[in-house]
Amino acid sequence: MKQDQWTSLLSVDEARSEILKSFMPVDTTTVQLHQALHRVLAEEIVAPFDLPRFTNSSVDGFAFRLDKKPHAGNQKMRLPVIGDIPAGSTDRIRILPGQAARILTGAALPAGADRVVPVEDTDFPYRDPSTQAPDYVTLIRIPEKGANIRPRGQDVAKGTRIFLPKRQLNPGDIGLLAMIGKLHVLVHRQPRIAIFSSGDELTALGRRLPKGKIYDANSHMLQALVDESTCQPFNLGIARDQPENIRAFFERAVKKKADLILTTAGVSVGVFDYVRKFLEEEGQLKIWRVNMRPGKPLTFGYYRSTPVISLPGNPVSAFVGFQVFVRPVLRKLMGMESDHRPTLRARLDAPIQSDGRETYLRGVVRKQADGYSASLCGHQGSGNLFSLVQANALLILPSGVQSLPAGAEVDAWILTDLIE
Amino acid sequence: MKQDQWTSLLSVDEARSEILKSFMPVDTTTVQLHQALHRVLAEEIVAPFDLPRFTNSSVDGFAFRLDKKPHAGNQKMRLPVIGDIPAGSTDRIRILPGQAARILTGAALPAGADRVVPVEDTDFPYRDPSTQAPDYVTLIRIPEKGANIRPRGQDVAKGTRIFLPKRQLNPGDIGLLAMIGKLHVLVHRQPRIAIFSSGDELTALGRRLPKGKIYDANSHMLQALVDESTCQPFNLGIARDQPENIRAFFERAVKKKADLILTTAGVSVGVFDYVRKFLEEEGQLKIWRVNMRPGKPLTFGYYRSTPVISLPGNPVSAFVGFQVFVRPVLRKLMGMESDHRPTLRARLDAPIQSDGRETYLRGVVRKQADGYSASLCGHQGSGNLFSLVQANALLILPSGVQSLPAGAEVDAWILTDLIE
Repeated sequence: MKQDQWTSLLSVDEARSEILKSFMPVDTTTVQLHQALHRVLAEEIVAPFDLPRFTNSSVDGFAFRLDKKPHAGNQKMRLPVIGDIPAGSTDRIRILPGQAARILTGAALPAGADRVVPVEDTDFPYRDPSTQAPDYVTLIRIPEKGANIRPRGQDVAKGTRIFLPKRQLNPGDIGLLAMIGKLHVLVHRQPRIAIFSSGDELTALGRRLPKGKIYDANSHMLQALVDESTCQPFNLGIARDQPENIRAFFERAVKKKADLILTTAGVSVGVFDYVRKFLEEEGQLKIWRVNMRPGKPLTFGYYRSTPVISLPGNPVSAFVGFQVFVRPVLRKLMGMESDHRPTLRARLDAPIQSDGRETYLRGVVRKQADGYSASLCGHQGSGNLFSLVQANALLILPSGVQSLPAGAEVDAWILTDLIE
Repeated sequence: MKQDQWTSLLSVDEARSEILKSFMPVDTTTVQLHQALHRVLAEEIVAPFDLPRFTNSSVDGFAFRLDKKPHAGNQKMRLPVIGDIPAGSTDRIRILPGQAARILTGAALPAGADRVVPVEDTDFPYRDPSTQAPDYVTLIRIPEKGANIRPRGQDVAKGTRIFLPKRQLNPGDIGLLAMIGKLHVLVHRQPRIAIFSSGDELTALGRRLPKGKIYDANSHMLQALVDESTCQPFNLGIARDQPENIRAFFERAVKKKADLILTTAGVSVGVFDYVRKFLEEEGQLKIWRVNMRPGKPLTFGYYRSTPVISLPGNPVSAFVGFQVFVRPVLRKLMGMESDHRPTLRARLDAPIQSDGRETYLRGVVRKQADGYSASLCGHQGSGNLFSLVQANALLILPSGVQSLPAGAEVDAWILTDLIE
């Protein structure tokens, strides 16, 4: 087909913005910290106290105070040890000039102390907290004022905004939230995504496969994609191509309080149009053709008041449609601000032809000494999931491009770890 | 301290290989496909039939047979339509030369047909499968022999090894497994990881924080890290620094059938040595000092017959220790072959000093026109989780390096999406 045939269709960017406009972040809920991994913050987190909360020792050693410099040549110094401060000690100890207290890493610096000498710079060899502190300690080296002390508030001052809303929490974040005693966190709830396939050619897993039929791959793949996004999938299975059956599946999705219904509507454009017509009658139809390949027959609309995205039935088209349109929607529903995704620039190993539509090709991106190379993998038929599982990236040819020579750079969406 | 002080310690690579040698993949279990995401295959997957399983149409149109080329100038052709083949049809239809059958995308090609003409190249405008097939169809364009046909086995021939064991399954893989009707998958079970913190300075989340104490951050952070690895964490909480208490926690881990016990043992070297001594008496101690920073006091050993990795108590040291030593162990336990992790080369924005140990610094890596730049973020104190949550990478200075100038390249371990 010629390029100008596609120009009356919506561009990918137009379709995506149009779809995204229709979604808002889902409501919020309070979870315990151990459930908060990968959830999206819905509150601002402010440090409730200084971190460290109290001035403490950064070594195992002896805290002491020195008001004047020791005489030159008199570098060894013997001090009485008036206390023993293990980590977590709540005793209040006060040090006078010429006195020392044994202290463990992390323990609160006693009042009066202005430095800590590490145990290895003394004549006391023991670190084990069950060893009794000595009566006297001899310092072999005298530390500077302030040495081996972590001042209160050094890392974070009380009142500092640690996290803003819309942040997806990672394990380090969980650690920091624990550190400030945050047991309950306000996050967006997990968006609920109902999924079904439709098509009379489909057979459910676990059943015998009759002649002329194929197993339903899409609902399982989409369920895994939704799962991986940390949304909550409901796989409703396979709807037959009859209006009553399709209606029943939409109704089940509504009963599940789905924030989004995700369907794939047969590999046939005819069947696809059929679902489209159904939506038009029972809800609202917004978009139905996008200038891309694979995945042209995208549908966005509503069944009653629940948004519906219907992806093409060919598994690779459904996968690409998910990446291009559904992933940004899920991120927005989850409460994230940006539609960020890992993208590299990679140089083509060989020329690529296209038809002028924005094209997503399965490729293998490899790290090279001077950047990244990209090659196509397998034949690019949109039913061919085998070439997708061999790929580690989707290579993107922009709209309007009919061919690219070897050596040309393309955007590559990273699907799996490839940086070696 | 001087560099040669560290040379008697184990190198990071030595310690990691030594630790990895002690682990084997955990045993296997059968899960349903919808539970198989991110699990590691323990069986070889062979295609049980061809994909596509039967020769089918790649378009909505009309299948027909043409034994001789039509005369020039006679490009329009009118054929009787003797059948209607929707997707999933199980009817057996045979086409004779000069006959056509209406066919939808994905439907089995009728016997006798040797090509398919797309609906847009005919005088029949309807795709909707509920529309009745016409009695006759006129072809506006005549396709080549084999056109718009997906031959049986084009994607995958029966008997092809689709996946080898040790593969971690992604959503595309799940789709392909569904496509071949694989309802049950043999995978490694999830490794069971018991976690506890020890240290008298620690207070559990949800409790009032007494003077001189801090909240336990490590067990929560490690739980999230284990969770993210798709292993199964058991967070046992905080053990006091008494032998009976530490023993009780180890016993609880053994009762949980932990494949690995992960502890952090106080910020004090003294307390750390204390746990080490305990392990020496109650199990076996293998490694206890590694030439790295942060995270030098690493312990690997056994409590009775359960392996134990004890990480330093400073949260950043615990995080780095997890990345360097625990992550590879989890991957091996899970059944994965390689200890792969996403790494970039990035150019330093400013000079960096080190002390000759292999050093892991929190940094921000940014994509630039000609590669990646790296800068340190926040002060690098090992208690400072705030600088970790601001980082998107760990920058690695190899052992033996005391300083690197601006512009020097370092390895960067990617912690969060940074490729923009």
